[in-house]
Formats: sequence, C-alpha cells, structure tokens
Amino acid sequence: MPLSTQVHEFRVALHDVDAGGVMFFAHLFRHAHDAYESFMADIGQPLDRLIREGPTLLPLVHAEADYRTPLRHGQDVSVRMSVAALGNSSFTLDYRFVDGEGRTCARARTVHAHLDGDRAASAPLPAALAAALEDRRSRP
Amino acid sequence: MPLSTQVHEFRVALHDVDAGGVMFFAHLFRHAHDAYESFMADIGQPLDRLIREGPTLLPLVHAEADYRTPLRHGQDVSVRMSVAALGNSSFTLDYRFVDGEGRTCARARTVHAHLDGDRAASAPLPAALAAALEDRRSRP
Amino acid sequence: MPLSTQVHEFRVALHDVDAGGVMFFAHLFRHAHDAYESFMADIGQPLDRLIREGPTLLPLVHAEADYRTPLRHGQDVSVRMSVAALGNSSFTLDYRFVDGEGRTCARARTVHAHLDGDRAASAPLPAALAAALEDRRSRP
Amino acid sequence: MPLSTQVHEFRVALHDVDAGGVMFFAHLFRHAHDAYESFMADIGQPLDRLIREGPTLLPLVHAEADYRTPLRHGQDVSVRMSVAALGNSSFTLDYRFVDGEGRTCARARTVHAHLDGDRAASAPLPAALAAALEDRRSRP
Repeated sequence: MPLSTQVHEFRVALHDVDAGGVMFFAHLFRHAHDAYESFMADIGQPLDRLIREGPTLLPLVHAEADYRTPLRHGQDVSVRMSVAALGNSSFTLDYRFVDGEGRTCARARTVHAHLDGDRAASAPLPAALAAALEDRRSRP
Repeated sequence: MPLSTQVHEFRVALHDVDAGGVMFFAHLFRHAHDAYESFMADIGQPLDRLIREGPTLLPLVHAEADYRTPLRHGQDVSVRMSVAALGNSSFTLDYRFVDGEGRTCARARTVHAHLDGDRAASAPLPAALAAALEDRRSRP
Repeated sequence: MPLSTQVHEFRVALHDVDAGGVMFFAHLFRHAHDAYESFMADIGQPLDRLIREGPTLLPLVHAEADYRTPLRHGQDVSVRMSVAALGNSSFTLDYRFVDGEGRTCARARTVHAHLDGDRAASAPLPAALAAALEDRRSRP
Repeated sequence: MPLSTQVHEFRVALHDVDAGGVMFFAHLFRHAHDAYESFMADIGQPLDRLIREGPTLLPLVHAEADYRTPLRHGQDVSVRMSVAALGNSSFTLDYRFVDGEGRTCARARTVHAHLDGDRAASAPLPAALAAALEDRRSRP
C-alpha cells in the first residue's frame, strides 16, 4: 500500500470557486500539479531545472479525479501525495485532498511518462529520478 | 456506440501552454467544460440558467483525460462530444480533441450526478434534461 | 482618435465567474490577451510564430483595466480593440468589452515593448510589425 | 508614504508561465488577489465570510500592473502589500512583487469600491472594515 509521502497545503481562493460557490473541477488538477512540483523539488528533481536543462521530457499521459465533497471558498485543504506505481519508463502519483476534519474531499491521480528527446518513444526514467521515486514509494 | 453530437472549436492560446510549449494538462479540462457549456446551451439546458434558477445541482463527480499528442500554441482544435452513458441520476460525456489533420490528440470524460437541493443524495435527472440527453445519445 | 479595428467575441464561462457570480477581474485580462492574439494573427504577425522564430521579444510592460458593469455567466461579450499609441519601440492597445446592448462594461489597456535578444534594452519594432500596426491605427 | 503591511509568498508554478518561460501577465493579478485575500483574513475581514454573509459588495473597479523583470518558473516571490488610499466608499491597495535578492520585479494596484445591496450606488465602507484598513494604513 503506497504511503503518504508529501503534504502540500493551500486555501481555496476566490478564483478557485465558480458561481456555484464550490471549486471548479479543473482547478483541482492545478492544485494537484502544485503538490507535484513541491514533491519533485523535495526529492531533488525540481521541474523548473528539468525543463531548463532538457531534454528530460515527462509529459502527463493520464489524469483523473473523483470529487466527493465540494471544496468551498476559504477552506484549508491539505494534499497528501504518494507514489502509486513506478515502472521502467513511467510513474503514477496519487493525491488525496483532505479538509480540516481529516475527511477526504477529492482524489486525483496523474501518470507521467518519460520520453526520449524526440518525443517519439518512451525511454527509461533517468536513474536519479527512479531512485528518488523508489525511495519515496517505500518510505514508512 | 455513442456518436459525436457536438463540436466546439478553439485555438490554443498563449496562456494555455506552459514553459514546455505545450498545453498545460489541466487546461484541457477547462476546454472540455467550455464544450460542455456549448452542448448544454444547444440542447436547451444552459448552465447559467440552471445555476440561476436552482436548485438543480449537477456536480461533476469524476473527470479523466488521456493525452496522446501535445497541443501546441496557435493550433486549431475541435472538440467532438458525445453522451457516453445516461443513467437515472447521472450522465457521462466523452470529449475527443481533434487537430487539423483529424488526429485525436487527447480524450476526456466527465461524469455528472444530479443531487437534491441538500446535496445529500442523488436524485433523478429532471425530465427535460434526461429527454434532451437521450435525444443526443441516439442521434445518428 | 483610435478606431476599433478588431472584434473578438466570447461567452462568459462558468470558470470565468467567482462565488459572487460575476467575472473574476483577472480573467478580463485573459480575454483581452485572446483578443490580442486574434489581432496579431489578423495583421499577419501571429504570436506563436513570433515566439517560435525568436528572438522577437514583446513583453507586456503595463496592463490596466476599469470595471463598470459586472460581466455575468452566459453573457455574450465582444471585445473591440484599437491601436492607441505606436512608438519606436513600443505600442499600446485598447480594449472595450461591450455587451449585447452595446454598453461598455469594461475597458482594458496593454503596453507592449520590444526588447533586443538579451532582454537588456528596448529595440525598434521590427519594420513589418510597425507597418502592420500603423495600418490598423489609421484605418477608417 | 504607505508602508508594507502584509507579506504573501509564493513560488512561480509551471502553470504560471507561458511558452516564453516567464509568468503570463494576467496571473500576476491572480497572485495579487491571493495576497489581498490573505490581507483581508489577517485584518479580520475574510472575503469568504463577507461574500457568504452579504450584502457587502466590494467589487474591483480598477486594476493595473507594471512589469519590470520577468518572473520565472521556480522563482520564490514575496508580495508586499500596503493600503495606498482609503476613502469614504473605496480603498486602494498596492502590491510589490519582490524576488529573492530584494528587487522589485513588478508592481500592481487594485481599487475596491463599496456598493449598496443593489449595486446601484457607492456606499460608505462598513465601519469595521474602514477601521481595520485605517489601522493598517498608519502602522509603522
């Protein structure tokens, strides 16, 4: 069972919510990506450096989310991340959006593939990245 | 097999793409929702009216996307929508993002549930909405 | 007096409005930029090509907006653009957001400077761009 | 001279930057608004409560920004806010975006008016809000 290895916190902003007063669904993915960026920086693989240095290409190939309880303006949310799967050329991250009472309001999942420089084919994950992800996957 | 019943077109804007030069994944869901709003208006159930009149609550309970080919700044994209499933209290919409050569660059899916006014339980879809969705589902 | 030389149309989407039910102010700038992109494509200077070809750098150095009447979900809006000023190394664009009754609901202005390849100093606008802007400025 | 009374910090995210690798100008306003929400919560006037309780209407009537130095992906930025002006029925906030070396990369300003419940006319600021703003304006 993957364990929660990273916590990212945010407060639901006015621009996050729509006319219904609850978070617009697509913004959940923006917050998941912010958590992902925090996670990558924390494991020593900050995205800005990866993009700047190239040609490591880690496109998202799949994303999904389940919405249980609406997230409301002003609410404090913590995102608990885990490495759900780690393959030769891809990895899967899970995100749990938890409110102040510890309830899971939403879940998300993203799948990231590693491509070679031509974007033509998948390529093995760089060794340092694979090791960092593996380390997080098994952390108690 | 559900048929494409609605086409929504857009051009990939500068604010859609990130430092990698391709569309940021979460923005695909924003465009899917624009297609959904066009679709709802087209079947006589515009979201702004539903929200204003209340208490019809149609929250998204699930969303997912698969990304095949990066969408690039300035590219013309058409979104072809279909009603993938229609239940008593929910419906599922599929979206295909097609480039100028007819290639499917991405797919998305959203699941919408109908809640009663208290958001406490699912409720049968309003009859007019169910009929409009059914009409689109079977259109050749 | 600068004349309206470009019209860009959009419908206020659910993700444009906030919990107050009116367009979140920052999104007005996103729509202004969409109008700007349409304008640049129309005068033969599409932004995606300029960015791809480099090193033409046209950063926004100033932006402002005045909000008169709230823009609401589902409302059809047309953006009427004009070239307000054209200098040696910069230009200013004005945007008027007009509702279905012809009322101006908001105004925006953006100032764009041309930098040399090092981003270190302003540089004369490329001749083709200056000519295209001049042409639009004087169009009756 | 208005003094900096509030500091809001953020890291430039991948979704903040465009194909040019620098922050898309409209997103600066989103971050300014996040700083504004922090500020309002800090002075005991959280926006979510104001909106929920109604009918206090504080629409933005003007926004502007000057961009000096591009903000780049991964950069840590602090927003220093101050109350620039306080009138009977409106107030003006200034924002300075400062990088890790203490340089001001951008400035923004927002003007907020207080409307009566019909949005028909300006109305005096609620006493508690006016006092809280005044307190911040004069703080050394």
